[in-house]
Amino acid sequence: MTDTRATKPITDDEVFAAHEGGKLTVETAMPLDSKRALSIAYTPGVAQVSRAIHDDPGMHATHTWASRLVVVLSDGTAVLGLGDIGPAASLPVMEGKSALFREFGGLNSIPLVINTTDVDEIVETMVRLRPSFGAVNLEDVVAPRCFELEQKLIEALDCPVMHDDQHGTAVVVLAALTNAVRLTGRNFADTHVVIAGAGAAGIAVTEILLEAGIRDITLTDSQGTIHSDRTGLNDTKARVAEKTNRSKTAGGITEALQGADVFIGVSSSSVPEEAVAGMADDAIIFALSNPDPEVSPDVAARHAAVVATGRSDFPNQINNVLAFPGIFRGALDSGARKITPAMKVAAATAIADAVGDDLRSDYIVPSPLDARVAAGVAQAVMSAAQQDAAAGV
Amino acid sequence: MTDTRATKPITDDEVFAAHEGGKLTVETAMPLDSKRALSIAYTPGVAQVSRAIHDDPGMHATHTWASRLVVVLSDGTAVLGLGDIGPAASLPVMEGKSALFREFGGLNSIPLVINTTDVDEIVETMVRLRPSFGAVNLEDVVAPRCFELEQKLIEALDCPVMHDDQHGTAVVVLAALTNAVRLTGRNFADTHVVIAGAGAAGIAVTEILLEAGIRDITLTDSQGTIHSDRTGLNDTKARVAEKTNRSKTAGGITEALQGADVFIGVSSSSVPEEAVAGMADDAIIFALSNPDPEVSPDVAARHAAVVATGRSDFPNQINNVLAFPGIFRGALDSGARKITPAMKVAAATAIADAVGDDLRSDYIVPSPLDARVAAGVAQAVMSAAQQDAAAGV
Repeated sequence: MTDTRATKPITDDEVFAAHEGGKLTVETAMPLDSKRALSIAYTPGVAQVSRAIHDDPGMHATHTWASRLVVVLSDGTAVLGLGDIGPAASLPVMEGKSALFREFGGLNSIPLVINTTDVDEIVETMVRLRPSFGAVNLEDVVAPRCFELEQKLIEALDCPVMHDDQHGTAVVVLAALTNAVRLTGRNFADTHVVIAGAGAAGIAVTEILLEAGIRDITLTDSQGTIHSDRTGLNDTKARVAEKTNRSKTAGGITEALQGADVFIGVSSSSVPEEAVAGMADDAIIFALSNPDPEVSPDVAARHAAVVATGRSDFPNQINNVLAFPGIFRGALDSGARKITPAMKVAAATAIADAVGDDLRSDYIVPSPLDARVAAGVAQAVMSAAQQDAAAGV
Repeated sequence: MTDTRATKPITDDEVFAAHEGGKLTVETAMPLDSKRALSIAYTPGVAQVSRAIHDDPGMHATHTWASRLVVVLSDGTAVLGLGDIGPAASLPVMEGKSALFREFGGLNSIPLVINTTDVDEIVETMVRLRPSFGAVNLEDVVAPRCFELEQKLIEALDCPVMHDDQHGTAVVVLAALTNAVRLTGRNFADTHVVIAGAGAAGIAVTEILLEAGIRDITLTDSQGTIHSDRTGLNDTKARVAEKTNRSKTAGGITEALQGADVFIGVSSSSVPEEAVAGMADDAIIFALSNPDPEVSPDVAARHAAVVATGRSDFPNQINNVLAFPGIFRGALDSGARKITPAMKVAAATAIADAVGDDLRSDYIVPSPLDARVAAGVAQAVMSAAQQDAAAGV
């Protein structure tokens, strides 16, 4: 899409002005400007609705906003590239996320930022507020705590819960990789993938690629490659080590990338050109760190057939907004109580398919502004949810 | 105001249809339909705002929605006339309240219903979520627990907190009484007031009338008049007994009303005609229970010069919506950290003054639909807040 205004540089004043007073408003679904409207929406009419829900709890889902309300929840411990800036400072990001749920998913969403980093306290808080909402988008919680928190929230709440930094990223990476593999004529399952970064995104990308059938994955972190003989791994990395790097390649990113088909960077680190130079022919490089990709796109292009980044000013932007609005919309539309692996893979397929016949090396994922994507994702997620539900998943 | 549509009866279908899917929506304050808008409202622009709040916590108040967001909080233990129906069934009422904050106060508001009745757990939950909101409207919590909960929330949160069933009602009663006393040519401070009901509203009405200077007040509950010699009073009633019914009148409502100037019913009970027949000439009767006033307006009119109810289908509706949107708006506009007695009295004065020269026995309070009222209340509350702040209250 062409957006000529994007060429005018964005000023600080413009950014701060746009955020003044916050980015969300709560509006009434019906005007309350007459006695009659007040009598219907508030007293005495509302008493009938409350009594009906008391008598038939299922009506809570149909006659309040809660069952389709997404809470964007954060403790502010891993915010964008800013790190642990705390809940108050994280709120503008969470407001933005809620705004994207409205804009792309057509869903109501409110940000809740929480002044504790204790997993059990966060879970307890959401359990207490359970009748107030219908889904939880967990956001910007530091790894490895985010894994435990997401798991405990899923167990404690009978509604969709997803940590977007893990699974939103993973879904869009899988979509992009599906198309990049298609473009370069590879067999998906046989692709050799190296992932730099074993935080929230790195672990989730690994899991979805395994789910999708890729067998040969190697992760690296700041200490080098992860393998099952390495000591001192945290629980999450130890678990992943059992399923990856079966050749137990030791060393750093250069050793890992030797002959690899795909590099996926979600590490906030820098990868030297020599390392990517050792990759296979027609390599695929997704350098997703923001604002500084692990490999600059220009350098990457010298060694790869397909290059993607997390940035909006280069082609092939891997942007979570392609995934989370449609995933939550589909989950809520289907009445799903959890977001299953199959629903995430279905979302990735829908995103990849949205590119259609326009597939080119500089167009492997749709534009984040393409409003059709979320609808397609929601439809695919709903179908997958219904299949999983029928199969008892 | 004339509202001819109100004459058409409201059907059940109409009520349930109006509540389907809930009564609130969250909207974006700016469209996110271009790369440029996304870059300003979300990444990378939002990172600047988050970093700025991290460096200067005061910017949380100006650059997020939180500082002007009112949470409508309930545990669902005393909902309208329905009683303890629980948090899920109370949600339609809380949504309606949030809608009224938008409609009359121009404020963002979200309902949070909480699945615990433990005072300390409710307080703890709100303390954890403190960076997410700017004020708390406590709603439909059963007495006497509501007194402890409101007090603990006020102590724990550095922001305006008000239990509307107590203070919203009290403010509008004071406004109405101010005008009724004026109409009947009484001296305000010398008025002899009897209040039936010593729950949330009864206690708060007593306190605001004492604050406003009335010296002779008697409360009754289901056991009869409250006085300092009565045994078995709960803490709240015992405290009130010290400041009311100085003549220690014993007996029931009939004894209490003998010669009284004012009856205020907030009791969900019924008062016999003989009892009100014993009141002073030109009596004032506020029979506020809904849907069944303590004394029917027709009966009351035989014995009183001024009659008010809580119902929209009779003149002089005592409706909290005249108070809470303006009170919270004024408190937030002034940056007040608490809602003081002076702010509540100022709100009542503003509501009474809004009637102006139109004062008649069937028009002692403005219409709940009069949009000018909230603005006047907000202005008065802001002035009172500034005076209190200057005086160190």
